[in-house]
Amino acid sequence: MFQVQILGTSSAIPTHSRLPSAQVVTINDRHHLVDCGEGTQMQLLKYRVKLARLDAIFISHLHGDHILGLPGLLNTLSMYERTTPLTLFGPAGLQEVLDLIFAQTQSYLNYPLEFIPTEEFQPGDIIYERKRYQVRLLPLEHKIFCRGFRFEEINKRPKFDFYKAKALEIPNEYFPLLKQGNTISLPDGRSIGPDEVLLEPDPPLSFAYCSDTCYHEELIEHIKHTRLLYHEATFLTNLKDRAIATCHSTAEDAGKIAKQAEVGGLILGHYSARYKDLQPLLEEARAVFPITALAREGHIFHVRDFSK
Amino acid sequence: MFQVQILGTSSAIPTHSRLPSAQVVTINDRHHLVDCGEGTQMQLLKYRVKLARLDAIFISHLHGDHILGLPGLLNTLSMYERTTPLTLFGPAGLQEVLDLIFAQTQSYLNYPLEFIPTEEFQPGDIIYERKRYQVRLLPLEHKIFCRGFRFEEINKRPKFDFYKAKALEIPNEYFPLLKQGNTISLPDGRSIGPDEVLLEPDPPLSFAYCSDTCYHEELIEHIKHTRLLYHEATFLTNLKDRAIATCHSTAEDAGKIAKQAEVGGLILGHYSARYKDLQPLLEEARAVFPITALAREGHIFHVRDFSK
Repeated sequence: MFQVQILGTSSAIPTHSRLPSAQVVTINDRHHLVDCGEGTQMQLLKYRVKLARLDAIFISHLHGDHILGLPGLLNTLSMYERTTPLTLFGPAGLQEVLDLIFAQTQSYLNYPLEFIPTEEFQPGDIIYERKRYQVRLLPLEHKIFCRGFRFEEINKRPKFDFYKAKALEIPNEYFPLLKQGNTISLPDGRSIGPDEVLLEPDPPLSFAYCSDTCYHEELIEHIKHTRLLYHEATFLTNLKDRAIATCHSTAEDAGKIAKQAEVGGLILGHYSARYKDLQPLLEEARAVFPITALAREGHIFHVRDFSK
Repeated sequence: MFQVQILGTSSAIPTHSRLPSAQVVTINDRHHLVDCGEGTQMQLLKYRVKLARLDAIFISHLHGDHILGLPGLLNTLSMYERTTPLTLFGPAGLQEVLDLIFAQTQSYLNYPLEFIPTEEFQPGDIIYERKRYQVRLLPLEHKIFCRGFRFEEINKRPKFDFYKAKALEIPNEYFPLLKQGNTISLPDGRSIGPDEVLLEPDPPLSFAYCSDTCYHEELIEHIKHTRLLYHEATFLTNLKDRAIATCHSTAEDAGKIAKQAEVGGLILGHYSARYKDLQPLLEEARAVFPITALAREGHIFHVRDFSK
């Protein structure tokens, strides 16, 4: 399983239907939160995301609409008696903000919070590694220090060719051994090697989170061939001047980045509060890159659905 | 107009249907926000509270569930291009929290924020004064420094006796002058003094906000005869030990305070996340003080409805 659930799609000002930035990236059964705008813990509740499966939080930058839900969420995790460690990536100033809020509110976390400043890495560096996936840092260009994140599968297991195994009349109880790469000896005397029933693994899936950023060509090489790209699209092109002034992107910018990076699919988000109807943003991006969808609160994108 | 709209009723942990503490006290056409838990700005949007009419914010204490919506709300007011000053009351540490968040997020408010630490006053002191109402500080007893707020009408205008004026055959165009306390001379030679058409004003309305606090008898004299009391009721009496340990109240405690203070009505709130059904809390308080209601997100209480 490799999916992304959208929790918030607004830019700085929330609207009646849109909340500030936050997404849950779920790989296998582990959750990773990317950005944590105000209200994120209520969204996690609403969409019944199991907090016990939350392993790490990735904060792109310190603007309020990306961090103001964090103190409340961390505190709630503690009140739910979490004891397992939580890893938090973000700009160094985040530690200071959290320390002061916890000191002033006299809150203490039950669990170890391991904070890792993103300034310690270069874009492209692997900042988080698990057996089957890893996260790399992406260069974004915004008014303040800002980084994106690329989740990518690694060490994918070969696929087990069930029909081949059945054709070879291998009893089912030998399947686990074969899947793990063992050679087996069958009661009838045959010896079967894993190569006979294992197929090449599927190509690795990947998801890149790119918000907030202006149109930034340096990003392209870092997200080349990413399966699914989330790229902010705060404005339409008729407000390109405003996008440049505020270091944000237009929907067309997002489409151009997706096209040049040859990604499998593009999700837009971080919409300005001025847009009640988001269809024009979608159309603008699709004119450049057709496989584009709108992020909407609650929506789940399955990364495998975006084929290369 | 004197009304209270509930924005949040949860205690520290929000639930599917309950958000952290916040209420809007509206007197005439001016809004006053009391506490500002995470998500308050979205609640204000949802219930279409006109932010331009928000004059002052009153923060009881620095626990996260009472303040974590504040940085986002203050920032949003600025992005809506507010320029009129905003007054903010709260414990002194709040200033430090806001200063650091604004510095780290590189946010700047367009409007003057006048911060007034509540430590500068004694319980009972008038901390905010307008022509027709004022706000007094209330003593609450919690784990950290905490104060309540009592909104009370002052200088109420006499009521105009429309039927008497009609009976005296006074032309309508003289009504405004009479309402303002002037003696008028009519075309028919009669002279009419204001005493002839003005009645005693209605008794002043008042609302007291008391959260968070343990059962605290010192409070009673400060809220004596308050028309409408909001008092926290985090637990049922079977968790009285837990209430004492966490410096919170039971629903029965709230009822006892309401009864001894001889208030006109009681609203319960700040419910522990463990209670899916709030009816037992209501019943427990009503056994002591019958005119009790449950705070619910979005509900508006009209203070005049609670008669003495």
